Amino acid sequence: MGNHHVERKEDHIRIVLDRKSSQSALTTGLETVRFLHNALPDLDLGEIDLSCTLAGRRIAAPVLVSSMTGGPVRTAEINHNIAAACQALGLPFGVGSQRVALDHGGMAGLGPELRRIAPDVPIFGNLGAAQLRGDDAFDMARRAVEMIGADALFIHLNPLQEAIQPEGDRNWRGLFDRIAALAETLGVPVAVKEVGFGLSASLCRRLHEAGVQILDVAGAGGTNWARVEAARATPDRHALGATFADWGIPTAQAIRQARAAVPGATIIGSGGLSSGLDVARAIRLGADIGAIAAGVLKDAIASQGDLEARLSAVVEELRITCFCTGSADLDALRRADLMPDQLPPT
Amino acid sequence: MGNHHVERKEDHIRIVLDRKSSQSALTTGLETVRFLHNALPDLDLGEIDLSCTLAGRRIAAPVLVSSMTGGPVRTAEINHNIAAACQALGLPFGVGSQRVALDHGGMAGLGPELRRIAPDVPIFGNLGAAQLRGDDAFDMARRAVEMIGADALFIHLNPLQEAIQPEGDRNWRGLFDRIAALAETLGVPVAVKEVGFGLSASLCRRLHEAGVQILDVAGAGGTNWARVEAARATPDRHALGATFADWGIPTAQAIRQARAAVPGATIIGSGGLSSGLDVARAIRLGADIGAIAAGVLKDAIASQGDLEARLSAVVEELRITCFCTGSADLDALRRADLMPDQLPPT
Amino acid sequence: MGNHHVERKEDHIRIVLDRKSSQSALTTGLETVRFLHNALPDLDLGEIDLSCTLAGRRIAAPVLVSSMTGGPVRTAEINHNIAAACQALGLPFGVGSQRVALDHGGMAGLGPELRRIAPDVPIFGNLGAAQLRGDDAFDMARRAVEMIGADALFIHLNPLQEAIQPEGDRNWRGLFDRIAALAETLGVPVAVKEVGFGLSASLCRRLHEAGVQILDVAGAGGTNWARVEAARATPDRHALGATFADWGIPTAQAIRQARAAVPGATIIGSGGLSSGLDVARAIRLGADIGAIAAGVLKDAIASQGDLEARLSAVVEELRITCFCTGSADLDALRRADLMPDQLPPT
Amino acid sequence: MGNHHVERKEDHIRIVLDRKSSQSALTTGLETVRFLHNALPDLDLGEIDLSCTLAGRRIAAPVLVSSMTGGPVRTAEINHNIAAACQALGLPFGVGSQRVALDHGGMAGLGPELRRIAPDVPIFGNLGAAQLRGDDAFDMARRAVEMIGADALFIHLNPLQEAIQPEGDRNWRGLFDRIAALAETLGVPVAVKEVGFGLSASLCRRLHEAGVQILDVAGAGGTNWARVEAARATPDRHALGATFADWGIPTAQAIRQARAAVPGATIIGSGGLSSGLDVARAIRLGADIGAIAAGVLKDAIASQGDLEARLSAVVEELRITCFCTGSADLDALRRADLMPDQLPPT
Ligand SMILES: Cc1cc2nc3c(=O)[nH]c(=O)nc-3n(C[C@H](O)[C@H](O)[C@H](O)COP(=O)(O)O)c2cc1C
Ligand SMILES: Cc1cc2nc3c(=O)[nH]c(=O)nc-3n(C[C@H](O)[C@H](O)[C@H](O)COP(=O)(O)O)c2cc1C
Ligand SMILES: Cc1cc2nc3c(=O)[nH]c(=O)nc-3n(C[C@H](O)[C@H](O)[C@H](O)COP(=O)(O)O)c2cc1C
Ligand SMILES: Cc1cc2nc3c(=O)[nH]c(=O)nc-3n(C[C@H](O)[C@H](O)[C@H](O)COP(=O)(O)O)c2cc1C
Repeated sequence: MGNHHVERKEDHIRIVLDRKSSQSALTTGLETVRFLHNALPDLDLGEIDLSCTLAGRRIAAPVLVSSMTGGPVRTAEINHNIAAACQALGLPFGVGSQRVALDHGGMAGLGPELRRIAPDVPIFGNLGAAQLRGDDAFDMARRAVEMIGADALFIHLNPLQEAIQPEGDRNWRGLFDRIAALAETLGVPVAVKEVGFGLSASLCRRLHEAGVQILDVAGAGGTNWARVEAARATPDRHALGATFADWGIPTAQAIRQARAAVPGATIIGSGGLSSGLDVARAIRLGADIGAIAAGVLKDAIASQGDLEARLSAVVEELRITCFCTGSADLDALRRADLMPDQLPPT
Repeated sequence: MGNHHVERKEDHIRIVLDRKSSQSALTTGLETVRFLHNALPDLDLGEIDLSCTLAGRRIAAPVLVSSMTGGPVRTAEINHNIAAACQALGLPFGVGSQRVALDHGGMAGLGPELRRIAPDVPIFGNLGAAQLRGDDAFDMARRAVEMIGADALFIHLNPLQEAIQPEGDRNWRGLFDRIAALAETLGVPVAVKEVGFGLSASLCRRLHEAGVQILDVAGAGGTNWARVEAARATPDRHALGATFADWGIPTAQAIRQARAAVPGATIIGSGGLSSGLDVARAIRLGADIGAIAAGVLKDAIASQGDLEARLSAVVEELRITCFCTGSADLDALRRADLMPDQLPPT
Repeated sequence: MGNHHVERKEDHIRIVLDRKSSQSALTTGLETVRFLHNALPDLDLGEIDLSCTLAGRRIAAPVLVSSMTGGPVRTAEINHNIAAACQALGLPFGVGSQRVALDHGGMAGLGPELRRIAPDVPIFGNLGAAQLRGDDAFDMARRAVEMIGADALFIHLNPLQEAIQPEGDRNWRGLFDRIAALAETLGVPVAVKEVGFGLSASLCRRLHEAGVQILDVAGAGGTNWARVEAARATPDRHALGATFADWGIPTAQAIRQARAAVPGATIIGSGGLSSGLDVARAIRLGADIGAIAAGVLKDAIASQGDLEARLSAVVEELRITCFCTGSADLDALRRADLMPDQLPPT
Repeated sequence: MGNHHVERKEDHIRIVLDRKSSQSALTTGLETVRFLHNALPDLDLGEIDLSCTLAGRRIAAPVLVSSMTGGPVRTAEINHNIAAACQALGLPFGVGSQRVALDHGGMAGLGPELRRIAPDVPIFGNLGAAQLRGDDAFDMARRAVEMIGADALFIHLNPLQEAIQPEGDRNWRGLFDRIAALAETLGVPVAVKEVGFGLSASLCRRLHEAGVQILDVAGAGGTNWARVEAARATPDRHALGATFADWGIPTAQAIRQARAAVPGATIIGSGGLSSGLDVARAIRLGADIGAIAAGVLKDAIASQGDLEARLSAVVEELRITCFCTGSADLDALRRADLMPDQLPPT
């Protein structure tokens, strides 16, 4: 029975929504990326082109709604809202971990209806690295993709979260090789993501060499899963949350280092992004796509309409950033002038 | 009818006066300019000479009251107070946007009476860059100048404000060329200003080469028009104010870069100046004139007397800064010693 | 009669437990040591090896409970709790100053029962440097060791504390030579420690050359004994606490400098450590062992069980830090990657 | 009648005692001077020698009570308390401005009784630079010295204070030459001091070359006289206090620059010193003497006993600083080790 998994996910959502007890003690570093204002852009705001490609599909803007699992009641609804809003706006999204759904059958909105709601945008499946240990892991991964008609499969790496949560997977030996083998055989692209502590440059390089084409750095500065898990743990483990509150590679640094390490990979910049300006900053630092999870969670729970309004505002902020830097498209944004000395440290 | 224009302007004044919801998240950078104290100046405070020239007229001190529009009721009064106080003190001023007045006839104190109240000081007219798009634009610009007997015409650049306000002008293609053409034909000097996000060095250079002699950097650190407009917008756009709260080139940096880029231009340093010491700092960084808008708005609304007292205090602070740096005049102030390592970054 | 000594110690505990009035105004600097996160460690968390050797005995993890004296009632209990918890977890500990016990007979749990409770772990005796002045000092030191079957003897250096406390030892002439002589003759290793203001590099070098093998830097950033003593002093001396609130060598700097100065010594990093992550940071900077006093005081007073839970959490945090940096043991941790530019200044 | 002078002085004391409305927005910079702790000084705290010489007399410690004027009631008492406490402790002191006393006869405790109370310590007279303008100025200066049997005469420079106070002296032409002439003819040493905005290096050099042997930098970071005077001024001038709240050369910088500029002068470091540790820091940066005004004002008003206790604590803190840096005397303190990178900028 996945019952305590389900409760755990409900806890997660409650704690994440209370930013005071789930927020990293670090900032993302994105706030240090300061664009040079162009007071006289030779542009029509309405004609700025934000479109690009991800996982083989054209998308309207480089904004991905990151993988989030919820409990049994909410998840179906959340997934529905995300799929519908993303389809309406032409944006890609990932589903939360499919582990429970795979173990207990297609529950929580993670069935074929998802692709029906969102026929045109990239959908990412999701499994934890530790799930790749089992004998039937590759079969499970294939089923995860098929179950929702995914265009790619996220494997999430969350060693600190696993180490802190009581029921966590503590043996991570050999998982790199499992990911490498999966990337070779799965059929759709394998994407690797952290959940808020960042992928280091050397890990990006090793994963890319092993065939992983898409890397989501999911850096520090947003949701801190050590704090979230410690808040759920027994009292004697509460201190672990405070201890690891400033753990991880800040998002801005993670993006820059990843881009320098793997020039050819698709890099998703995420971890604490809260606006379209943050997406622009991530892109300016080297990301292809910006992703947001906690920052849209409340609206994803509320309704499809709220989420659409929220995501529209994010896209509009990205468009305005292009406008006020004189960037006609994403390629121009990537070269936009910054204020002097305004790159964060590598 | 310009009715919603009028309401909008009333909103502006209300929001600007509430600094908490209109202030930039950045500082001007002027606070980093620290003069070296001279404890034994060989000067008579009363004889320090602050006079200089702007737009062909002699002024008593390099302090300009920046362009501000108000609603229909207040504007006439505000303009009257500004004109009378500036005339009394020998200071230059700009009027707010003349767009509505031009479209609907000479309302709101923006008629020939202005010049009668202030016969001796430089008056700057004001139009937005986006208004130059129309066929009759140059004719309109000429009428703007004539209407108030202006010595020069400010063209304001406010792409971020336009992008955020619902009714904003979103198409800015070709406006640079329109400004260049206007500068060639208008008869009085064309001056270009931002409204609080700064002119970049390269834009200053291009404008100057195109014939614009006066550049008001209007940098970041004071009123943030993204916040002001977002506060007025529909709820789903409120977030844009927070997102762009730290946008723009801080005033100190804008002045230094502008001066380095266009040594021969008249540079007005503005954006968040709040005292005569700030004016002195702007001048020390390369500005010819310091300008203030929001910092005198309350007194400009209150009465001519209040505004005169406020502007006198600003001039006195500038004079005291000269005294305590041993500077007999503005040329000496420009070379006044600073504390070591006290120039902000270029 | 050591009666006012006893009261003094009770005061100490009360004031130390109120962190607001005993905390240094400095930080330890350890917070600037930021490990590079490894999102895919090739490790089993349960098999990470934290064991090492101290004072000739194998210990389960490099975590020492520092010397603490209490008043007459609590001390016996505190010492019992510390000894039992450390024995259960395989951790070393030091006792508080044995001066009063030596002067008045084996009171306060500082007798042979201590070794019986903790037969397997390193126990450190404790005397103040100023006590070495007397003729019978070396005899007293020998008795201090025998009394509890100690593996080594801490000599604590606390000149600022002595200078501020009314009853303090103010004459420190010749004490270096006394320590050097003791180190030669005592039979068990002499270890030297500060109490929260740090040992400088040059003092570490001189002590090491004189035969002191173990150095506990006890740097600034945690308990500030100037504040503690000033709080107890007459009103006219209260100000001294605030004055010296930022005195001392921050722990991170003290460790780095000590390691550079005495590569061959056993270095204990302490002063303000509050978690296993702090222990890991101390080790990464060059310490062999991390030590904690005030950070476990409350639990040491509460019960053996509480202290055991607290120390287990510290060890677990250290283990998790190894895991998330991909370090299989302490040697690997010593070479773990840091975030770029994340070493504090030497 | 000097009646409004008297009221003004009462105002001063009231405002200065309310630190919130009189404190500089800058820090002194002294807090950045961090001594390297010596955990094992080869010293007897009681034998540390703090004595030195000032204005031809031996003093017990390099701590001067700075010039302070009060109103008519308090001044006599304050001067009495200061003289008696300084005599008891062997410390030098300055009196506040003698202008009113000279103009209206020997009031306010500024008569020969002062020397009778304090026969053995250096006493400094006090006049403002602007008072040197008059024809009888040198005669007045001579009377100021004789009136209290002064060992030296402070000339205070306070151009910013004069510029802000309504009744201030605004014409400072020629005052340098007057000081130079006075220094040649007065008979006792002329000392020059600021009142809280600092003497620059170049002014120190010029004054020293003109014969001024004693320079009290009186830098920024403590009492800000622009704030004090603005608080007393008419409402339209209140803003000047905030404007100049961060004016001046911070004390630490002023001392270092002065020492580099005039190696041979007697330099008094003052402005915001609040403890004996601050005195030690000033001396480490190059001062011969540390001076305190506002920091002892409350106790000087309260009673001789309170002031003595306060000054004793300051001296004790200086002594402890010597002890914990291993400095046997002031010469050693001048060379005491600092934490690496702990000198403030020149
Ligand atoms: C409620 C919630 C549930 C999440 N569940 C998953 C998950 O099942 N799988 C996964 O890979 N990441 C999961 N994440 C992590 C996010 O995908 C993302 O990497 C991380 O939160 C950092 O982005 P953010 O700062 O925008 O939230 C979850 C995040 C949230 C907020
Ligand atoms: C109430 C108000 C109305 C304004 N209206 C105009 C305007 O109509 N035209 C213009 O060029 N600038 C306008 N501005 C911008 C100012 O001229 C100035 O550039 C800007 O506020 C930055 O200066 P400050 O920080 O001193 O306020 C306005 C400013 C305020 C506060
Ligand atoms: C209540 C208490 C009593 C202490 N007593 C002693 C002592 O008797 N001898 C000694 O060497 N250190 C003593 N210390 C100092 C500690 O051993 C340690 O060096 C110092 O507190 C710094 O570590 P911390 O920041 O983890 O507390 C005491 C500390 C505390 C908190
Ligand atoms: C109440 C008060 C009165 C003062 N009066 C004088 C004065 O008459 N003459 C003078 O040279 N300085 C005067 N000062 C300035 C002090 O001598 C000193 O230079 C200044 O306050 C900076 O030192 P502090 O920060 O320790 O107060 C006065 C200061 C205070 C607080």
